[in-house]
Amino acid sequence: MKVELFALEGLPDVLPGDDIAELVVLAIRKLGERLQVGDIVVVTQKIVSKSEGRLIRLGDVTPSPFALQWGTANGTDPRVVELVLRESRRVVRMDRGVLIVETHQGLICANAGVDLSNVAGGEVATLLPIDPDASARRIRAGLHAAAGVEVPVVISDTFGRPWREGLVNVAIGVAGLSPLRSYVGSRDPQGFPLQATVEALGDELGAAAGLVSSKLNRTPAVLARGILYEAGDGSARDLIRGAERDMFR
Amino acid sequence: MKVELFALEGLPDVLPGDDIAELVVLAIRKLGERLQVGDIVVVTQKIVSKSEGRLIRLGDVTPSPFALQWGTANGTDPRVVELVLRESRRVVRMDRGVLIVETHQGLICANAGVDLSNVAGGEVATLLPIDPDASARRIRAGLHAAAGVEVPVVISDTFGRPWREGLVNVAIGVAGLSPLRSYVGSRDPQGFPLQATVEALGDELGAAAGLVSSKLNRTPAVLARGILYEAGDGSARDLIRGAERDMFR
Repeated sequence: MKVELFALEGLPDVLPGDDIAELVVLAIRKLGERLQVGDIVVVTQKIVSKSEGRLIRLGDVTPSPFALQWGTANGTDPRVVELVLRESRRVVRMDRGVLIVETHQGLICANAGVDLSNVAGGEVATLLPIDPDASARRIRAGLHAAAGVEVPVVISDTFGRPWREGLVNVAIGVAGLSPLRSYVGSRDPQGFPLQATVEALGDELGAAAGLVSSKLNRTPAVLARGILYEAGDGSARDLIRGAERDMFR
Repeated sequence: MKVELFALEGLPDVLPGDDIAELVVLAIRKLGERLQVGDIVVVTQKIVSKSEGRLIRLGDVTPSPFALQWGTANGTDPRVVELVLRESRRVVRMDRGVLIVETHQGLICANAGVDLSNVAGGEVATLLPIDPDASARRIRAGLHAAAGVEVPVVISDTFGRPWREGLVNVAIGVAGLSPLRSYVGSRDPQGFPLQATVEALGDELGAAAGLVSSKLNRTPAVLARGILYEAGDGSARDLIRGAERDMFR
């Protein structure tokens, strides 16, 4: 078994209203490849947010007194703190200058995915897509229209983790596949029941895409070929542990 | 840019004293491939532990009163609880039947990496390698001897994560590469300084290897080709966040 990961480089700077699926299909053609049944397309959140116009000028943001106080005390732009709080349903940790929240999408991450880099002018923030699964479904439909093939789509974003240094990409939106690969009820080659048996396929795909998409090249999407997956109407919400099963909220 | 991940399947059942490097080189040859400069070999912890004899018969373990009490109360074999505690320097959480510890290697994970599956008889536990970086260095030296090429080696293990469902593989031992890819001081294509700028390359490699190594086939190693990395004397300890920077211990 062999998996191939193609960096889809050289996409133009994405603007609100741009069709990500078209850009991806063009980038695949430029590589001399064609989208095939069994392929999976991983797209980074940043270009999805840009295409959906999830941008806000910092100059248009008035921080609340709380955002002003905490931002000033912690060396963070209070307008950014304000945006993070607006994007959040709950603060998980607010300590040592780090703001970890539960977003309206249910994701637990630093700064609610609000990002300032890579946007011309530097004073514009990108916000996460409002419904990343819906974004993935739209791109999947667009790929079908543009290339005639139905393939799963994963939208990835770069997260930190408790206990470990460095960032990895995880899946925040999926369409066309189940993001968990389950071995419950399966047996290993010796015939013993497999114990810890649910694999976070969506997050593995995000992390693998990170291997080929260096931040220094413009590699906002990756084509993955050769991966076994279960087709279906999965949701990236399946990757979020429910509060009742979580000991670290 | 293109990355290839080859599943190294069909390795025999690994026994104490077996040479993992030799088995890997054989499996690569069986694929009709050759180890090349720039390749990275990812090996799962389980076969490394077996080759190092990190096995213990449960029948030989006498649980302490504490292990007996907690295991009985939580439906876990007290002998396994005993092994987990012996492999730990500290308990992080001990709640809802889940035991999350800091191992003597400094890793924070469930059950200290003690595993019962995949070992003939089912009553034998595998323990993590005592020094997984040293294990990776030995395999790297063995690959050099057997194939004449110096390549990085990553030892991966399957971990759960706070906040997220499903398991992913992370790097618990590395040799020949830096497991963090740093963009500090770099600028994006528009010339803006990159913000969140350290990527957990080692963990991305583990996760990517998980994509090709289904638990149902016997795929205890993966060959990764085409990945940009910084050669050097890295340690998987670089991937562990220091307590002073960690808000979730």
